[in-house]
Amino acid sequence: MKKHETLQKSTADLKRMFEEFHIRPIEELVNRLPKSKLIDFKIIIAHRDFDLLLNEYLEGNKFSIVSGRGPSGPIHFGHLLVFRVVKFLQDAFGANVYIPLSDDEKLVFGKIKSLKDAEFWALDNARVILALGFDKNRTKVYISSKQRWVYKYALEIARKLTLSTVKNALGVDDSSNPGIPFYAAVQIAHILQPTLDTGERVIVPIGLDQDVYMRLARDVAERMKIKKPASLYIRFLLGLNGQPMSSSVPDTAIFVNDSEEEIWRKIMKAVTGGQPTIEEQRLKGGNPSGCMVFEWLKVFVFNSEKEAEEYAQLCKNGDLLCGFDCKPMLARAFIKMAKEITTKAEKINLEDFLWEA
Amino acid sequence: MKKHETLQKSTADLKRMFEEFHIRPIEELVNRLPKSKLIDFKIIIAHRDFDLLLNEYLEGNKFSIVSGRGPSGPIHFGHLLVFRVVKFLQDAFGANVYIPLSDDEKLVFGKIKSLKDAEFWALDNARVILALGFDKNRTKVYISSKQRWVYKYALEIARKLTLSTVKNALGVDDSSNPGIPFYAAVQIAHILQPTLDTGERVIVPIGLDQDVYMRLARDVAERMKIKKPASLYIRFLLGLNGQPMSSSVPDTAIFVNDSEEEIWRKIMKAVTGGQPTIEEQRLKGGNPSGCMVFEWLKVFVFNSEKEAEEYAQLCKNGDLLCGFDCKPMLARAFIKMAKEITTKAEKINLEDFLWEA
Repeated sequence: MKKHETLQKSTADLKRMFEEFHIRPIEELVNRLPKSKLIDFKIIIAHRDFDLLLNEYLEGNKFSIVSGRGPSGPIHFGHLLVFRVVKFLQDAFGANVYIPLSDDEKLVFGKIKSLKDAEFWALDNARVILALGFDKNRTKVYISSKQRWVYKYALEIARKLTLSTVKNALGVDDSSNPGIPFYAAVQIAHILQPTLDTGERVIVPIGLDQDVYMRLARDVAERMKIKKPASLYIRFLLGLNGQPMSSSVPDTAIFVNDSEEEIWRKIMKAVTGGQPTIEEQRLKGGNPSGCMVFEWLKVFVFNSEKEAEEYAQLCKNGDLLCGFDCKPMLARAFIKMAKEITTKAEKINLEDFLWEA
Repeated sequence: MKKHETLQKSTADLKRMFEEFHIRPIEELVNRLPKSKLIDFKIIIAHRDFDLLLNEYLEGNKFSIVSGRGPSGPIHFGHLLVFRVVKFLQDAFGANVYIPLSDDEKLVFGKIKSLKDAEFWALDNARVILALGFDKNRTKVYISSKQRWVYKYALEIARKLTLSTVKNALGVDDSSNPGIPFYAAVQIAHILQPTLDTGERVIVPIGLDQDVYMRLARDVAERMKIKKPASLYIRFLLGLNGQPMSSSVPDTAIFVNDSEEEIWRKIMKAVTGGQPTIEEQRLKGGNPSGCMVFEWLKVFVFNSEKEAEEYAQLCKNGDLLCGFDCKPMLARAFIKMAKEITTKAEKINLEDFLWEA
């Protein structure tokens, strides 16, 4: 889906957006959730109706999580962030997890040449995501174009939408192909399917730039007289070069199938908050805020705020050098993580999780 | 699909349309086809590329016929006309026949409330169509939303279209739901599926008002580098009251499940070419041209041009009275046909024909 301008809104803009669309900061719910670095490090930043979901949960109602992936290439660690959030929720609440692999999305947006091309990546990506350790009794992965119910539910949902609403939401015009506006209905079908099939409320972890689809999904749910989906908003993490992470700009991200050399090379040229020379760094200290390496260490490596704070202090004191200390630490961590996850991915028995209905 | 203004074009308009879109009169092919009242009575009026299809057939290439039905109510004899054409082609050339029952079409156009509602009519309509006597080894009937390949092929086809083209073709705007432009791709998927799956060229018998979809289908076929579908154009038959036949105006048509009384009542108030009084009719004679009863006798009852000509002469001579001769003859014929087809329909074993893939 098209990324919108909301990606990097100012704090004031964000506050307005939160108020307008009834999004609440996650801090409000900290006492109701297990301790997790996903919250401490503000990887989850906000929510809509998660409080409602937690109330229902306390009353004995289970819930489902829907989190998809468009399979047109290898997975990078940025993609996996959202699935770490999904796993956190499944572990904490025993939630059912549905992972649609939207080959149809990739096709209509022209990212792949045929559905067949997506199949390789769909199965590859599924293995990697599942390698995070999802519960096979509560987790279903499916390829969207292969599910019989997807087209049927999308048809029923399409009737609750208009072309003008969808064109606005997607930011497309009449030069787009008719599969694109229909895909909005398909995506809503993915989101609403657990509620339609089991009555469970759904929560979807997404980026703020995707909220427009959540709002459409909620409107449709209301018109179908079913529970509206809740959402969790995941922080937008910048890439190693300080630009948005993007699969089409491979150097912005670390892919799980990157070689040791690639990981090392990408991280070695990351944007940091260091001084131009070793002498200056020793003398003045570095600046951890705005340092991509420090940011990535927090999100992917450090285990606690305390650990992060200690490293920040060492950096400011001039005790750390970007190229001798922090970058190698990050690179070694990623080389280890990439090896671990690809090894686990190979051992995944997809049949335990694949759903074709 | 929306009926267009092309329904009742003047002869001059038709000629222009034929030239512009490379449609040819069927008369040109009379010597290459078995004798049939469908041609003698101009029920089939024109074609595009049927000559090409016949050439390929002579070279040993079989072909397929696709002819669908939107299942939202009972079938009338007007609907069955097109399937008589299909059967004529199957009998003459051993062609494979595919009959999509487009519940998805009926849903997105708001003619039914849910796909489930269409299922009853889909199965009912299939029985009636099949009661015409299709070859079970060469005929497949399927419900569109239940076929796994429909959504997949429609996605691939959608990529070859633009919203603006489809909106123009369907005459819809942005207030329509996104299922409507996508349905254009679904309909093209029905048409192109035999060619995509078996390489056989397809021929589609349709009304001239539907030609815009054939032109879209041909454009897509060209872009997919497969054989373009041919078409046969079926005459537009007016209803008993002289207005277009329409399921939503039941008195314009005779439904196969109409009771004897309903058939009798509808035909008794049909528009004829008769005089206001019996005396005038005997004196001046009637006017068979513009008489709906004579028209319907030709299409549904008479077996030869000679028989039709004899009746026309009797009418002009004042030897026939609308209410005493022609209307009862037509009514008795329809009562018999309705009984025959519903009896045969009940005996159809749908499993011999139903395709779910």
